Amino acid sequence: MRTVSVIGIGETKMGKYPNLSIRDMIKEAGNKAITDSFIDRKEIQAVYVGNFNGAYFSNQSHIGAMVSEVLDLGNIPTIRTEGACASGSLAFRQGLIAVMCGIYDIVLVGGVEMMTHQPTEVVTTGIASAMDYELEAMQGLTFPANFAMIANRYFYEYRNVKKEMAICAINAHKNACLNPDAQMQKEVTLEKILASDMIADPLCLYDCSLVTDGAAFLVLAAGDIAEKVCRHRVVDIVGSGHAGDNLTLYTKKTITSFAATRAASEQAYSQAKLTPVDIDFAEVHDCFTITQIINTEDLGFFKHGKGADAVAEGVTAIDGKIPINVSGGLKAKGHPIGATGISQIYEVVTQLRRDAGMRQLGKTDIGLAHNIGGTGGTALVHIFRGR
Amino acid sequence: MRTVSVIGIGETKMGKYPNLSIRDMIKEAGNKAITDSFIDRKEIQAVYVGNFNGAYFSNQSHIGAMVSEVLDLGNIPTIRTEGACASGSLAFRQGLIAVMCGIYDIVLVGGVEMMTHQPTEVVTTGIASAMDYELEAMQGLTFPANFAMIANRYFYEYRNVKKEMAICAINAHKNACLNPDAQMQKEVTLEKILASDMIADPLCLYDCSLVTDGAAFLVLAAGDIAEKVCRHRVVDIVGSGHAGDNLTLYTKKTITSFAATRAASEQAYSQAKLTPVDIDFAEVHDCFTITQIINTEDLGFFKHGKGADAVAEGVTAIDGKIPINVSGGLKAKGHPIGATGISQIYEVVTQLRRDAGMRQLGKTDIGLAHNIGGTGGTALVHIFRGR
Repeated sequence: MRTVSVIGIGETKMGKYPNLSIRDMIKEAGNKAITDSFIDRKEIQAVYVGNFNGAYFSNQSHIGAMVSEVLDLGNIPTIRTEGACASGSLAFRQGLIAVMCGIYDIVLVGGVEMMTHQPTEVVTTGIASAMDYELEAMQGLTFPANFAMIANRYFYEYRNVKKEMAICAINAHKNACLNPDAQMQKEVTLEKILASDMIADPLCLYDCSLVTDGAAFLVLAAGDIAEKVCRHRVVDIVGSGHAGDNLTLYTKKTITSFAATRAASEQAYSQAKLTPVDIDFAEVHDCFTITQIINTEDLGFFKHGKGADAVAEGVTAIDGKIPINVSGGLKAKGHPIGATGISQIYEVVTQLRRDAGMRQLGKTDIGLAHNIGGTGGTALVHIFRGR
Repeated sequence: MRTVSVIGIGETKMGKYPNLSIRDMIKEAGNKAITDSFIDRKEIQAVYVGNFNGAYFSNQSHIGAMVSEVLDLGNIPTIRTEGACASGSLAFRQGLIAVMCGIYDIVLVGGVEMMTHQPTEVVTTGIASAMDYELEAMQGLTFPANFAMIANRYFYEYRNVKKEMAICAINAHKNACLNPDAQMQKEVTLEKILASDMIADPLCLYDCSLVTDGAAFLVLAAGDIAEKVCRHRVVDIVGSGHAGDNLTLYTKKTITSFAATRAASEQAYSQAKLTPVDIDFAEVHDCFTITQIINTEDLGFFKHGKGADAVAEGVTAIDGKIPINVSGGLKAKGHPIGATGISQIYEVVTQLRRDAGMRQLGKTDIGLAHNIGGTGGTALVHIFRGR
């Protein structure tokens, strides 16, 4: 198996774009990534693009062929991948495998989602397709309700961490203010969070991630090609893990820990020959604040039930021992569902290149990206190392 | 790269299932494939499932995790692939690559689509998401209209082949009568076809493929494992090609030949070290009768502009020199979009195993499956050889 590196990155600013389409977003982020890679676009041999629900939100499927057309890539193979909120990371891993195994030498991987043009009820219904429709969504279950049950169970098994969840949100907003691509650009106080509208008890407005339009693309190349063409610090993908779980929440053995994340992270750590203490910083799936806390435990950064203590102690803050979501995360950078996994990796690579401007961390040699779909039915973990 | 073999196959009967759901279809076809493979389901290491538009037709995304839950596969990685009508073949190729490269040893690949519960206008709108929404679908273009333009252009460049298109339909219906899994079980006459409702001139009702509910699954294994566990004739995948093209019809250089098919078939033939004359039979994408004629030309079976002559001469009939769509094809076996590519391979394997009952062909050592998405924005070609 060959080493594979990220040689080009590009993303749109995350936000609301009522006058732009999926085409426009692909064009902007895709061209940025290709330009940043310093290769000729005709050298790209395949496209892998994550999109969650363009069919429902925008009447648009078959987005692989759209990427090829918009970016003028010719007759190369394209594929769209979908696994709910992990759709982008699935595209990344498929592209990674193809280059690692020598099927292709240079590929474009990306993700895109346009959601904000739809009214809230359409967005909610569209997102709910990431759970089981018959057994869950049709019964009235929504994703805030799913994660509210998870939070309540977490409170029951460990302790009430409502305040620490709020600190996750405070950190996210603070970090996002340092990220020009972030959708949110304002800080938020503990008082404001705790006084905000209740969405699904105990999750209030500021515990929820954003509805976002956005796209992100990356150019991946075999390590030896990267060495020759990359004009940035070469970033190698040193670990990749992908695991799954049942789709429905009620069939899971536990809901305060995601088995898919645990399995995916074990694979990634093992492949990278690293352990959680080796990770300098991480982008972690925070669709809700409670999810971030659980995920940092599942990734082995903290013991189960202790993730909230770490948040309270500042360990996960931008100046902490293991900064989490310096980008602002899904919570404040934004959550353009199909693009999210790629946008997380965009941040990891930016930090490893030391190009993160005001939010640049000190030591950034090894970074991790973690992305889940649904209530943990899909999970992917990738570990990156700067050369 | 290792040889990869198909060791298990399963599909539902294609048809209308108003009382069944995506879950039920996965359960039936998935369990059939696993049972047929004679392996323990716990040996399956990953799932690749094609689905075109469950989100729009059934409010159901994240079908990879559903497959894992329904078939009790544990915490293995799953992915849904989408590329319009080629969604199933994309799943197949991703699974193939993973086993070929040693990422996994045994994987489950499949496809599923439920469409018939929706009224025609919803089906039409949902299918139209496989073209460019802004530039095509929103302007009123439908897929029958797309392929009507293609047919008219073909008539202009070569000659009027309306009668030969009807013969494609006659053959498909005749073959489907010999296939217990086919949706259509009745023969049709030339007179009836030519007198049927005009859908989009020159395509009449019988030139169009079916709206179908269905699922199909296959178990793939590394060749050496296949040798040990397979209780049927082992079927090796000897060639795989995947190529693409622009999404929109108006940007294509020609519309009477699909560049993606030509590129994908070149790859597959080259990998298999075979030429079109070596192929004993083929399942070819016939979303419309004209598409079948064009595809048989693009696959190299006949010269451009000569595909219709071959149909008229009986070359593509079940007792012809190169039988096309002995299963009944999309036209009469059915077109459950996300499952179609897998269902085509199901037929190829069945023929190679010599298990095709009344429709069993004589010499079946090498078979080909060809699947396109949209108006050729995606194309895949796979070649199979029985050991």
